[in-house]
Amino acid sequence: MNYKTLQTIKSPEDLKKLDNPSLTELADEIRNKMIETVSHTGGHLASNLGTVELTIALHKVFDSPKDQIVFDVGHQCYTHKLLTGRYDRFDTLRTKDGISGFCRPTESEHDIFFSGHSGTSISSGLGLATAKKIKNDDHYVISLIGDGSFTGGMVYEALNNGGRSMTKHIIILNDNKMSISENVGAFSKYLAIIRSRPEYYNFKASTEEKINTIPGIGKAISKKLYDIKTDIKSRLYTQSTFFEDLGYRYMGPVDGHNINVLTNALLAAKKVNGPVLLHVITVKGKGYEYAEQHPSLFHGISQFDIETGEPKHKGSSFSDIFGHYVCEHANRDSSICAITAAMSLGTGLERFRREHPMNFFDVGIAEEHAVTFASGLAKNGMKPIFAVYSTFLQRCYDQIIHDISLQKLKIIFAIDRAGFVGEDGETHNGLFDVAFLNTVPDITVYSPCCYRSLEADINNALYADKTSCAVRYPRGGQDEIVKKLRYEFIEYSEYGDMESENLIVTYGRITANAISAVDRIKEQLNTDIGLLSFNRIKPLPDHAVSIISEKKKVWFFEEGVRSGGVGQALALRLIESDFKGVYKLTAIGDEFVHQASVSQLLNEYKLDTDGMFDVISEDI
Amino acid sequence: MNYKTLQTIKSPEDLKKLDNPSLTELADEIRNKMIETVSHTGGHLASNLGTVELTIALHKVFDSPKDQIVFDVGHQCYTHKLLTGRYDRFDTLRTKDGISGFCRPTESEHDIFFSGHSGTSISSGLGLATAKKIKNDDHYVISLIGDGSFTGGMVYEALNNGGRSMTKHIIILNDNKMSISENVGAFSKYLAIIRSRPEYYNFKASTEEKINTIPGIGKAISKKLYDIKTDIKSRLYTQSTFFEDLGYRYMGPVDGHNINVLTNALLAAKKVNGPVLLHVITVKGKGYEYAEQHPSLFHGISQFDIETGEPKHKGSSFSDIFGHYVCEHANRDSSICAITAAMSLGTGLERFRREHPMNFFDVGIAEEHAVTFASGLAKNGMKPIFAVYSTFLQRCYDQIIHDISLQKLKIIFAIDRAGFVGEDGETHNGLFDVAFLNTVPDITVYSPCCYRSLEADINNALYADKTSCAVRYPRGGQDEIVKKLRYEFIEYSEYGDMESENLIVTYGRITANAISAVDRIKEQLNTDIGLLSFNRIKPLPDHAVSIISEKKKVWFFEEGVRSGGVGQALALRLIESDFKGVYKLTAIGDEFVHQASVSQLLNEYKLDTDGMFDVISEDI
Repeated sequence: MNYKTLQTIKSPEDLKKLDNPSLTELADEIRNKMIETVSHTGGHLASNLGTVELTIALHKVFDSPKDQIVFDVGHQCYTHKLLTGRYDRFDTLRTKDGISGFCRPTESEHDIFFSGHSGTSISSGLGLATAKKIKNDDHYVISLIGDGSFTGGMVYEALNNGGRSMTKHIIILNDNKMSISENVGAFSKYLAIIRSRPEYYNFKASTEEKINTIPGIGKAISKKLYDIKTDIKSRLYTQSTFFEDLGYRYMGPVDGHNINVLTNALLAAKKVNGPVLLHVITVKGKGYEYAEQHPSLFHGISQFDIETGEPKHKGSSFSDIFGHYVCEHANRDSSICAITAAMSLGTGLERFRREHPMNFFDVGIAEEHAVTFASGLAKNGMKPIFAVYSTFLQRCYDQIIHDISLQKLKIIFAIDRAGFVGEDGETHNGLFDVAFLNTVPDITVYSPCCYRSLEADINNALYADKTSCAVRYPRGGQDEIVKKLRYEFIEYSEYGDMESENLIVTYGRITANAISAVDRIKEQLNTDIGLLSFNRIKPLPDHAVSIISEKKKVWFFEEGVRSGGVGQALALRLIESDFKGVYKLTAIGDEFVHQASVSQLLNEYKLDTDGMFDVISEDI
Repeated sequence: MNYKTLQTIKSPEDLKKLDNPSLTELADEIRNKMIETVSHTGGHLASNLGTVELTIALHKVFDSPKDQIVFDVGHQCYTHKLLTGRYDRFDTLRTKDGISGFCRPTESEHDIFFSGHSGTSISSGLGLATAKKIKNDDHYVISLIGDGSFTGGMVYEALNNGGRSMTKHIIILNDNKMSISENVGAFSKYLAIIRSRPEYYNFKASTEEKINTIPGIGKAISKKLYDIKTDIKSRLYTQSTFFEDLGYRYMGPVDGHNINVLTNALLAAKKVNGPVLLHVITVKGKGYEYAEQHPSLFHGISQFDIETGEPKHKGSSFSDIFGHYVCEHANRDSSICAITAAMSLGTGLERFRREHPMNFFDVGIAEEHAVTFASGLAKNGMKPIFAVYSTFLQRCYDQIIHDISLQKLKIIFAIDRAGFVGEDGETHNGLFDVAFLNTVPDITVYSPCCYRSLEADINNALYADKTSCAVRYPRGGQDEIVKKLRYEFIEYSEYGDMESENLIVTYGRITANAISAVDRIKEQLNTDIGLLSFNRIKPLPDHAVSIISEKKKVWFFEEGVRSGGVGQALALRLIESDFKGVYKLTAIGDEFVHQASVSQLLNEYKLDTDGMFDVISEDI
């Protein structure tokens, strides 16, 4: 592939020198580079393909990093990375020590915040712009945010505050009519209405721009003309937009794939006195046929074949098993409801959506509402299951306490992507859920190590447990070695020599690695050791705790944070049980875990077979 | 005081029999009862005075509990309690074993959810209504919510989902132009605009109602008439409301102190096919002069003199000291910003608001935005302090992780109402903050036991610590006995005999009780014991841990949850330090703590001097 224009761009300055035909060429090259790279590395393709021209226009008009561009979620930052000196390293996207698939300030001064959770860019952008105002810094802050994020509440909290702020804050609403899946809710319908209005701002080579070039007086006249034009607009649109009601100057909608139109629109936005919302229409997946046709599938995708658009790897996963099993239950039990926050594909709920539409709810990227909505369903006799990624469950911690636990209502949390997620990195690892759920009264937490336990846990959660339950499972599938486990209890399982004074304790996916470690210790060190794997991690099974408290040496391995995790909870139980042995906890310290493959991370944190073997060999 | 009508109301059925003059009398009696009771018990007076007529009308028109009335926050539920069989016990409001100042399902079938955190009622109401739809239950769900809650994002998440739901969900927007303090943001301005529009729905004894009484055909004709009327309305208002854009039938605004108008409006709302938003205008504090004049002060108030409106108790508090100290710093350091989520009075920031208006931000009831907004301020060089009640900090757990900790930005969390809060009960106790902050990488947490430590901690947080800090302190003031502490370190302090093999460990307010316990143990048991009180609770001071690990008997007392708290974290540290002594942790178990005075709660949970003495005597 030829990247002759792209490879000349070392910083946004280089971009500013290009003429229009070159910019169009550049856009093509960027698309090719992204498709080629993501086909190898996996990544967020569709949303990035949709914002190529928009990002080019942003860097043409604004002066990053003095003007600060904040990317919401960061699903849209690939073009930005390619234009800010990261073309040479772009092949390392999402790999260990490579460049991040999201914004990462440690990577470039052009990346303002780490991003990965949606709906934060208006709040953080407003903070940046407010600080600039206090400090009399005249530069702009631009928040680039997708329409999907407008299903989340924080956006409205920010708009409510920003509308009266008189800051130099420009919000770009990238409207591709999608969240991750198809967009939901009344707001997306509202956007459809304003999209259908006559386009007023077409900005093509306006008189305004020409006047601007007259030295000295040009800008002042242009400003006056602009004000008149705006006045006409506000009369034309007696039906003011929602954004104007909130105090923003609304501009748009404009074609998000026309660099010239975009450039003029952004120049006009700069001239407004006060905060602006510019509405840009883009096509998710633009320029790659398969991604345009299947934007949800190509939202976040693993390696794929460019020619056919087919993913390269396919195998069973905990998500699939969960989705399948819940559908089976729902066929017999009409009180089961499934809720997702814009993640029906990722959480394995697509079949449920099709087969049980009355009982299926995609609430948008709105985890808080999802939980409190579920409390209402439960109160009136339904069995709601909220399927959510571990990292996003952090968003509804208070709702879990206040609207579920306190109410003594039964909700089932199906927590996907628990533990390391790998390539998505810092913002997406599911390492906190166990620790924060440990603080919630009365909730039962399961962490199955295999499909069979997953099914048993869901079944228990639906029909045996009295209070709310969480069932957490990792990205990917089961390791077949778990079939060697003995005594498949709902509380815990065992392996190896349980009479030995040495014991490995763990839970979840890494149970597989612990089984191998037991075997290797027997084989290479000729030492017997037992393995106790919790299936139920809250409350800790009493019988298991009493077995552990009698051992001389206990090694606990935890794919989650140390502080507040199961290993720490067990330490308290042991110290209270008069345990006098040695206790070694291997878990994630006070840090965020960077991107790398899951197996690389398990190795680095000594949670794979090699790591466990090393840790144990030191003291056994 | 005469309550002759009120005392006849044993259930909403009794209310339905009353004629209009009796209802007016009833409203007066309810107001008197509330003022009289709250003057003794303290409570949320102003908002409850504002919703007397509205609640009467609700119980007249709807059939609770088959129709389910959900109160947002519950600051407005006193009239509801008085009308649903709780008049006889109303004097026990907010006292131990008495009735709750919020909704509490265990108290009455008319209370649908425990409530206490704002902005949840539309989500939970939508859940209730959706379950009713699935089950073909024809009854209504009513969510009563104040305009202040519309500064919080969850409301928009819920509206976005509810607008297309076709449920029998009626949202009553109780617009008193206030949050807790004066309302902020663009949305409140927007409400002011729609309030100023000509009133279309005046509903007074409409033809519609008369037609309704014709048996058989009445309702159908009425429905037709209603549709025509609505059609006219939508033509009259070319400028449709925000709520209509989201799919709700908007009705109002109507006078919230006219029972007849309200009754007719609610009857009309019942006839709408699909979800409705009824906009009701009320006066916060209505009917009690001092509360009308000072609605923020009378939002939540302790005992007061009815004649003068003066609070009975006044004394210094941690909140005052914090507010004062931060102002002093801000006089010298213009980078300091203070942020509150509608709590400038409660958090002691009123003076800061007056003296540093450019650097003061009341963001509304929007804790998530508050934190992410602060991240933007910090990124551009400001020192933001977010002052917030412990229980509400739960709302921004993810933002603390994703937008602060991960970004390595320095924000200061001034966490007020940490620990037991007493009379506000289950939903307001600040017992989780330590445990959930323990899971957050890189954040430093202080829990001062006295004003002097509070000042030192704020100072450290502002100028010494490199990463984000939380400083947490209780409701109320310091106990003078803390002045007996030796060695006032930033890490920890000591008291009693530190050479003894016995040691009490604790932190925060109950350090005062531990000092008395040491004295009493010496006096009554003639035994020496030491006391180590942490000031910095995360990370735990290494030197303190090594002192503790050498003791034979350690008693840890914690005014916070056991699971994930400091006592548990210390257990892990001890077990890893080869501690072989006895360790007893007294903390709050897997439960929610009910209402009672703070001293009653400290006694009940063995965290006062008596309790500590008892616990220690058992084993010493």
